[in-house]
Amino acid sequence: MIMNEQTYYLSYFIDELFQNGMEDVVISPGSRSTPLAMLFSEHPHLNDWLHFDERSAAFFALGIAQTKQKPVALVCTSGTAAANYYPAIIEAYYSRVPLIILTADRPHELRDNGAPQAIDQIKMYGDYVKHYHEMALPEATEPMLIYSRRQASRAFTISNSRNKGVVQYNFPFKDPLVPNLQLEDLWGQFKSPYLKSSGGFETIDDFEAEDILNAISNYNRGLIVCGELTREEEITSVLKLAKEWKIPVLADTLSQLRQYEETHEYVISTYDALLKHDDFRENYQPEFIIRFGSMPVSKPYFQWLISHEPHLHIVVDEQAGYREPSNAKTWMVYSSVDHFIDQLLSSNSSYVCDSTWTGEWQAIDEATKALLREITEHDLTEGSVVSTLSDHLPNRHTVFVGSSMPIRDMDTFFLPAQKHVIVRANRGANGIDGVVSSAFGAAATGEEVTLLIGDLSFLHDYTSLLLGIKNGLKLRIVVINNNGGGIFSFLPQYEHKQHFEKLFGTPFNPPIKEMVESLNVRYHLAQSNEQLANLVREPVTGIEVIEVQTDRDENFKWHQDIRGHVRQIINNYKGER
Amino acid sequence: MIMNEQTYYLSYFIDELFQNGMEDVVISPGSRSTPLAMLFSEHPHLNDWLHFDERSAAFFALGIAQTKQKPVALVCTSGTAAANYYPAIIEAYYSRVPLIILTADRPHELRDNGAPQAIDQIKMYGDYVKHYHEMALPEATEPMLIYSRRQASRAFTISNSRNKGVVQYNFPFKDPLVPNLQLEDLWGQFKSPYLKSSGGFETIDDFEAEDILNAISNYNRGLIVCGELTREEEITSVLKLAKEWKIPVLADTLSQLRQYEETHEYVISTYDALLKHDDFRENYQPEFIIRFGSMPVSKPYFQWLISHEPHLHIVVDEQAGYREPSNAKTWMVYSSVDHFIDQLLSSNSSYVCDSTWTGEWQAIDEATKALLREITEHDLTEGSVVSTLSDHLPNRHTVFVGSSMPIRDMDTFFLPAQKHVIVRANRGANGIDGVVSSAFGAAATGEEVTLLIGDLSFLHDYTSLLLGIKNGLKLRIVVINNNGGGIFSFLPQYEHKQHFEKLFGTPFNPPIKEMVESLNVRYHLAQSNEQLANLVREPVTGIEVIEVQTDRDENFKWHQDIRGHVRQIINNYKGER
Repeated sequence: MIMNEQTYYLSYFIDELFQNGMEDVVISPGSRSTPLAMLFSEHPHLNDWLHFDERSAAFFALGIAQTKQKPVALVCTSGTAAANYYPAIIEAYYSRVPLIILTADRPHELRDNGAPQAIDQIKMYGDYVKHYHEMALPEATEPMLIYSRRQASRAFTISNSRNKGVVQYNFPFKDPLVPNLQLEDLWGQFKSPYLKSSGGFETIDDFEAEDILNAISNYNRGLIVCGELTREEEITSVLKLAKEWKIPVLADTLSQLRQYEETHEYVISTYDALLKHDDFRENYQPEFIIRFGSMPVSKPYFQWLISHEPHLHIVVDEQAGYREPSNAKTWMVYSSVDHFIDQLLSSNSSYVCDSTWTGEWQAIDEATKALLREITEHDLTEGSVVSTLSDHLPNRHTVFVGSSMPIRDMDTFFLPAQKHVIVRANRGANGIDGVVSSAFGAAATGEEVTLLIGDLSFLHDYTSLLLGIKNGLKLRIVVINNNGGGIFSFLPQYEHKQHFEKLFGTPFNPPIKEMVESLNVRYHLAQSNEQLANLVREPVTGIEVIEVQTDRDENFKWHQDIRGHVRQIINNYKGER
Repeated sequence: MIMNEQTYYLSYFIDELFQNGMEDVVISPGSRSTPLAMLFSEHPHLNDWLHFDERSAAFFALGIAQTKQKPVALVCTSGTAAANYYPAIIEAYYSRVPLIILTADRPHELRDNGAPQAIDQIKMYGDYVKHYHEMALPEATEPMLIYSRRQASRAFTISNSRNKGVVQYNFPFKDPLVPNLQLEDLWGQFKSPYLKSSGGFETIDDFEAEDILNAISNYNRGLIVCGELTREEEITSVLKLAKEWKIPVLADTLSQLRQYEETHEYVISTYDALLKHDDFRENYQPEFIIRFGSMPVSKPYFQWLISHEPHLHIVVDEQAGYREPSNAKTWMVYSSVDHFIDQLLSSNSSYVCDSTWTGEWQAIDEATKALLREITEHDLTEGSVVSTLSDHLPNRHTVFVGSSMPIRDMDTFFLPAQKHVIVRANRGANGIDGVVSSAFGAAATGEEVTLLIGDLSFLHDYTSLLLGIKNGLKLRIVVINNNGGGIFSFLPQYEHKQHFEKLFGTPFNPPIKEMVESLNVRYHLAQSNEQLANLVREPVTGIEVIEVQTDRDENFKWHQDIRGHVRQIINNYKGER
């Protein structure tokens, strides 16, 4: 009887998630979670993914949810299993990705009594979940089955509404745990959610749009700045706005604006390199900035914003959070990006930037792009790896980018091109953990994915290759192996040779080739840009790793050299002016 | 100036930890944690261990702290790094292991503003830490330096007093982060803790001892039951009590009573096999039980306690927790085990068990031990691996045991012998995560360690081999490779072939040999008990992995067969009686 009650209670919960639009669940093996695992697996329309390491499973779910922009469920057993989800939950919180954590638990009377593999799971993720619910014990009475369906709908709706984020539902289960898969009408007869929710975005009205346009109309020198954008509509709207206003768009590598369907004359990609120079910072200070998406990766941009505050700084945030690390006087606009832009463009007032201002940004950006292309043409360097991806990745491809150096090199060397390459990363908390798993998540949605990652981050999540193998996924991984933490060479401790190699350089001498081949995964060593280009141009047909070996010290010097060349461009341009 | 202020403030904090008795710190690389990392590394008397994966680093620290029974510090940077500590923190909470978590953070004005790699670290481990302290910004005024020293002492004292457990100290740091290692008198002039703490255990008085002895004196048939013991004094006291009272001691594999300096006639090790049989459960029901340490691993014992409640059930707990998962009417005694036993034995009253009762337990245990030896003599099985370790591990060795099947097989097949083999495990939450790391932690204290682990748990923590290699540790790892989750074959879902292999069997076909050899770690395949014996007899001179391949289905049948043989012994013994 318990078995049947438990079965219907859960099959209804699971079916309701499906009715709401859920497509994927990631399961880790365990005993207490048996009823959830077996029923999820039994559901005819859900993709059930499996991995033994819950940390990696959660980052994988995050990758799927971020790519599809819809909630993914995670199922694990009781105990520290659930604690392994924590890093990915925090990343999801900051990157606003919807996840539904379903933790199996013992019933209340069997908790906190010294039994093994039973921990206190109530609100165990603290403030990092939007909503916690302790489910009632399974019962199959009519009101309890409705309760179960409604809770599933709530879980889906809460996680998927702004700010998108994580919910935890904790399920007490009594023995016997095995569900009855033979039950009649296991999923019920619903063809739509029992509890349907609409709504979910904010926007501005005509009056506010007019206010903003009035404010802007005082100025000739403006910039659009774009951090990470996640929806197609945002991208097209921003490009439309740029075209109307003839305004430069500083486009972060995650803005998706650099390699979209067509090249865009207003997209500026080299500002990170340019803003390292005082001359440039002084001469190209804008009167106003409108920023969409998160704060860009570029540290020089951030520092410039602080030291050269514009007269008007508008930040448009689709969700309800606070993403403004500078102290600049700011007008925060909480609105869907596309609705905001629609309002601006449908107004009676119009606006156009000063053409000299825009033209100069365009010209100096062109010159710098040419320089970056030239610099990365011959030797294989950490920068040329990105250039090669930028030039040779096929259309309709995704680059997943690791934290630390790879995302920064992408910001510098990933240049606009007339094709559609999507760039993804875990930029919520910017950890080096779980990156391979998240890239597999993006790949699990059907996107063709190349992951660019450093050696430490690759090692951190190496065993997720087993996740990829087990679940039949395809992924191309380019590992920049500089034998340690490359980014630390750019920090002041690089000057303090005492302790540096041990604490920061941290060379582990990872035998990437042997580690990869031990799992029967294809391995290549790329020793030239041509070799790399030939490899990354091909379709991704399985899991494969391409290693590029670099030297931390040389890399640091090489990056320093570029600075000199960019200075030259800035000086030349001043001369011509 | 900030640099010097920050330096003294932290060097004093670190030195105070050392003055309190701290010996070890485990550091993970990062930027924000630079001042802590460099100063810990600079301290002349602390062991600084390094690993890039914070999850593994924390389990490693746990292994050191559990073995030394003293606090170990962990240092990480801001962001999800800190979240990776969570599984080991929960294990430490339940297994009562002292850890001091030192998380680096941005100063308050730079938090929660959309900057990357900055998360809310305040109380991020919820109720799993005994104490959280948000450190003040570094200052080097006299009162602030004293504050820093006192906080270090408090961190040490709180984590190390009962219940031993975890504390988190969150440090806000401003740039510049690099400390000044050239400062005069960097560590101060202290030769003892600035804040010294005494005390730390509870005991009973004469009157209570008399009460307990009076209660026991009503009965002739008693049992001592021993779960995990952690201190030498507990072990010798329990053995002394058994000898005085001539009472059988059901000794869990973690009680340390099975293989101690001398064999002990009262130690019963086969109760797990015996208590699976109704006849035995009926005939050998005790009138009273005194339990020391945690609840034993044995599920049959637990079920017996519930179904055959003794008249008197005393649980002695050294610390302040609640470790009694049965519903038996219980007398909880909060007392140091050795002080409790001293009180009992120094009383005027004395007590001796019925000699027939004790004699029968001894005889049937002897017969069962002989059977278990015989059964594991020839074929290489999951059980014979344990027998082989039991017989052939050298004196003064440590076995670290993985969760799930290995700990249960140890409970059955690890038999008393006249040598000192310590058995350790992560039995707080009993997770399969972090086990290799914790075993490395035990080895880092200087113990010679053999780890017995299943394939899933080994894969879960495989990259911690890099931790071992990097830090020059020695460890012998015996991997029972049954290609998946062997324990699930013992659960009801084994009967439901649908979904079983996918969700529970979870075969990953791990190429253990190739994975191990890719890291240049020595690998052996043991195909017979003799081969295994020859390998495990040798001193541990580096890191090496011994794989034993078994079959989950065969293993299940083999375990079932043993049940029949034990029944035979019980029946024979009834005949003789």
